[in-house]
Amino acid sequence: MKKVILTGDRPTGKLHLGHYVGSLENRVRLQDEYQQYIMIADIQALTDNFETPEKITTNVHEVVLDYLSIGINPLKSTIFIQSQVPELSELTIYYLNLVTLGRLERNPTVKNEILQKGYDSSIPAGFFCYPVSQAADITAFKADAVPVGEDQIPMIEQANEIVRKFNRIYKTNCLKEAKVILSKNPRLVGIDGQCKASKSLANAIYLSDSAEEIKRKVSLMYTDPKHLRISDPGTVEGNVVFTYLDAFHTNKEEIEALKAHYRKGGLGDSVIKELLTDRLQTMLAPIRDKRNSFKSEEIVDILITGTRAARDVAKNTLEEVRQSIGFRYFC
Amino acid sequence: MKKVILTGDRPTGKLHLGHYVGSLENRVRLQDEYQQYIMIADIQALTDNFETPEKITTNVHEVVLDYLSIGINPLKSTIFIQSQVPELSELTIYYLNLVTLGRLERNPTVKNEILQKGYDSSIPAGFFCYPVSQAADITAFKADAVPVGEDQIPMIEQANEIVRKFNRIYKTNCLKEAKVILSKNPRLVGIDGQCKASKSLANAIYLSDSAEEIKRKVSLMYTDPKHLRISDPGTVEGNVVFTYLDAFHTNKEEIEALKAHYRKGGLGDSVIKELLTDRLQTMLAPIRDKRNSFKSEEIVDILITGTRAARDVAKNTLEEVRQSIGFRYFC
Repeated sequence: MKKVILTGDRPTGKLHLGHYVGSLENRVRLQDEYQQYIMIADIQALTDNFETPEKITTNVHEVVLDYLSIGINPLKSTIFIQSQVPELSELTIYYLNLVTLGRLERNPTVKNEILQKGYDSSIPAGFFCYPVSQAADITAFKADAVPVGEDQIPMIEQANEIVRKFNRIYKTNCLKEAKVILSKNPRLVGIDGQCKASKSLANAIYLSDSAEEIKRKVSLMYTDPKHLRISDPGTVEGNVVFTYLDAFHTNKEEIEALKAHYRKGGLGDSVIKELLTDRLQTMLAPIRDKRNSFKSEEIVDILITGTRAARDVAKNTLEEVRQSIGFRYFC
Repeated sequence: MKKVILTGDRPTGKLHLGHYVGSLENRVRLQDEYQQYIMIADIQALTDNFETPEKITTNVHEVVLDYLSIGINPLKSTIFIQSQVPELSELTIYYLNLVTLGRLERNPTVKNEILQKGYDSSIPAGFFCYPVSQAADITAFKADAVPVGEDQIPMIEQANEIVRKFNRIYKTNCLKEAKVILSKNPRLVGIDGQCKASKSLANAIYLSDSAEEIKRKVSLMYTDPKHLRISDPGTVEGNVVFTYLDAFHTNKEEIEALKAHYRKGGLGDSVIKELLTDRLQTMLAPIRDKRNSFKSEEIVDILITGTRAARDVAKNTLEEVRQSIGFRYFC
């Protein structure tokens, strides 16, 4: 039997190249090796977008289209919508008892996000508790592993703590600890060179961007502000064009040669930008074409089928959880 | 159409005289005037008993028996088990986004309970968030009113805040604010005179206590420690026997006369204790008999029927809530 992994995205926008190198590319490989569940995390997205739910609901189909366009196969991967698996909410309620307020406050991922968002005690309880909701997601499918970036490791640790506590208190083995599959690719910076590519900063190149948008965004890319004339020596480190060439160009030697040339001077930004544009166009054109080949009804069908399959598994786990606690009154 | 009320108990033990004067008596009256939902709050009880779930599960039937024995009529009142209405968990998850951590910390009822239990940051998140879960319970049934003691008023205020916030953000009127029906009867002290009668302090007289237990517990009642000889003047205030006589004896004049006599001196504790014992025996014997007349299968039937009815209503509300947020993807 294949091992199980759970992965997913908050559907707050179309997916971009940052998602591609960070996780999507991996998933295409992982779906052959594992029974892969891919969750459209609308409930989780709602925790910090509860005032603008349309930002979530309008993007669910877009995200599925992104999945399909890059090669996620719904016959291999189970794609489902979090909110349509109510068993996850029930599990969350049971798990909330097993986590102290202090423990949640010390979660580094949450701590960091609280800082980023400038929350203090005005932090919504839903957002604060979302690691517990994640534990529900992971355990519901008895995930053997979760592919994550380094910054998400504390979330998996929190989930595993809940698993151990649940199994100990309720004298059961029904919940399973998950391993981390660490994403090898570092986060991709935005075209402005600031932090990671992100929907909210509008500094990302989307998988669905048109040829013109790709060209425009590459032309805006941050390079080396001191590289004023072509003949000037340029800096490669922090130069977004080279970061993207490293990530997406297939000929590593060519890139190394270009870097040397750029460092020495005599290589203009326009040349490397054109090379990157060409590479991205080659890479994204078939993805865009595939994306446009799906009908809306197909997406609905995929979601219905995936969600039904996910629900069946989550139901079983919830049943075991209820049995373990003893909250099973009628046969 | 009858107005709706929601009430209930944490099923952590059999119900006692404190419950009777505090709420059960009212419910028998209210079930004629209102559509009354009575919730066996096992999920809520689990928030501070999660390590001993059997304390809850073994008492569900006992509590229903207590209800039936004092005259709650399952044809008039809908008795249901909280955990068997999963829609309540889903509503809780949606409402958690609408309450800040700071607001929960300032809830006086929770603050007080945290103090009583000696929690600090070791407070379980489930317990901390239970006012939100209560908001889910109240709103799921579109309760017009909730009968509560004074100490529970902040909980209703919290629920109404969530209602207003939800309706405002999601531009709907699907949730309803609830009024408070204030319980007129003050809380009954325990037989030891300490605080309220409570399961955990083992200082309560249960509705199901045998004649011998009633006699024994009245004999142990705290009176006036300075009332050493019958001829001594005695104190009525804080004298538990008189508190109980006030609460349960039907002849108020007789009680006033006895109080005067006791104050003056010449009235022994044994006399007032015997009077109280007689009164409680008269009152509790038919309750006990009725309690013993139900078969276990009848209780299961009542719970199944009530839970099904409750679920239908909660489902409708959840459907409206999901529609309002927009989390409805498949028709």
